[in-house]
Amino acid sequence: MNPLRACILTIGNEILKGKTVNTNMAHIGRVLTFAGYEVYRSLVVRDDPEEIAWGIHTALSFSDLVVTSGGLGPTFDDMTIGSISRALGIETKVDEGALKKLQERYLSRGLELTDDRLKMVRLPVGSTALGNPVGAAPGVLLNAGGKNILILPGVPKEMEAILDSAVDLLKIPGREYYEETFPLEGIMESSFAPLISGVMKKWAGKVYIKSHPQRSETDNPSLEVEVSSSDTNLEAAKRNVKEAVRYLKENYPAFVGK
Amino acid sequence: MNPLRACILTIGNEILKGKTVNTNMAHIGRVLTFAGYEVYRSLVVRDDPEEIAWGIHTALSFSDLVVTSGGLGPTFDDMTIGSISRALGIETKVDEGALKKLQERYLSRGLELTDDRLKMVRLPVGSTALGNPVGAAPGVLLNAGGKNILILPGVPKEMEAILDSAVDLLKIPGREYYEETFPLEGIMESSFAPLISGVMKKWAGKVYIKSHPQRSETDNPSLEVEVSSSDTNLEAAKRNVKEAVRYLKENYPAFVGK
Repeated sequence: MNPLRACILTIGNEILKGKTVNTNMAHIGRVLTFAGYEVYRSLVVRDDPEEIAWGIHTALSFSDLVVTSGGLGPTFDDMTIGSISRALGIETKVDEGALKKLQERYLSRGLELTDDRLKMVRLPVGSTALGNPVGAAPGVLLNAGGKNILILPGVPKEMEAILDSAVDLLKIPGREYYEETFPLEGIMESSFAPLISGVMKKWAGKVYIKSHPQRSETDNPSLEVEVSSSDTNLEAAKRNVKEAVRYLKENYPAFVGK
Repeated sequence: MNPLRACILTIGNEILKGKTVNTNMAHIGRVLTFAGYEVYRSLVVRDDPEEIAWGIHTALSFSDLVVTSGGLGPTFDDMTIGSISRALGIETKVDEGALKKLQERYLSRGLELTDDRLKMVRLPVGSTALGNPVGAAPGVLLNAGGKNILILPGVPKEMEAILDSAVDLLKIPGREYYEETFPLEGIMESSFAPLISGVMKKWAGKVYIKSHPQRSETDNPSLEVEVSSSDTNLEAAKRNVKEAVRYLKENYPAFVGK
């Protein structure tokens, strides 16, 4: 079975300008990987309806699941839901359940439900509002042409809370991921490379290995080695990884200084 | 004059899996913004020749400059230069200057120049090798169909050092960027929103304002407000920003609790 493919679509000028580091993408990537997806590509686009439309069309063209983050708030440049809906030709309407929560939040404090605030609960018809336990804007789960779109806010705490609650809906049964990371001191990445290739052949697609150099390649080298596996059950994935790690640790001394 | 558009293309499975946070993208985005570019979109692809080909073709289709990071080292999954060259139909050959540095680095330590190591200096014909002061793999500056492609390593210290040395070659004359960020306590983003829209209209495209909520929208709210401007000279960009910041600070109290 081919793994289901996911794309993470981040929306926000501040990410592109490097004002904000895209920690959301890493968090979402981690959660989706452990939920059994292959995070296939990732896109970042500006706060602009045409850009969001490009992003969602591009992402859907190669993914089974698209997870977006950013642009769900009450300001002029929060336009994710409207832009995705228009891009896919889906009407929006006020979600009654989400509206009730918004009313509790604002009216109870003597604040008006302005158009900017109402925008947060104007959701695509047929979508599911996902309650936001730490903020105003709900997340949205939408099915379009057989593909899932999960729309999350950009504020990390809000995004994480909603993703946590949604991940059970998205988990792929019978596909488990396991990984281990360990340091190797005193070996250059270029010396270690042939051993990696050998192990990946030996385990024939069952394990994936990547080395990350931590210091200079030639002077006082140090590697972080990541070994991972996806299999039909967690025990099998663990066994693949543990066997490959043991083999790497036993055999790397022969490659030091080569 | 329309701003020149840049795309940041990050290559690496570890970014997609969320194992590594993409701090390189933020650093490159920052440097390009201050160099006068509009960082238009960003893409992340896997360590795979077809994926890198998709990334470079997609990025070139909407950008004047593409900056890549990742995949320049000596392991099997370092395949950026070969994949970009093949995707663009450009031959590669060993760069004599870069080879000399590689020989100094490896041969002087009694290490062989294996094929894996030689790969790091097999560069696209017509490109410029950019010396790497802190690692083995040089960066590459390539012109393809009138567009620039800057190829950088993924190790942050190496990427930053090469980008620093290359940025003078890429700086857009007559386009200066300035920004200020300040906190605003006790105002909700949804209350502040109409003021932002007003100021952006008042300065008619000369300033860009974005608010980032730091805490809950309704309880004890706090915003980080970012005001930026691009103009033909730094003085003008500064003046735009400072005037808008003063106006925002003077006028926001009227919007508190609305």
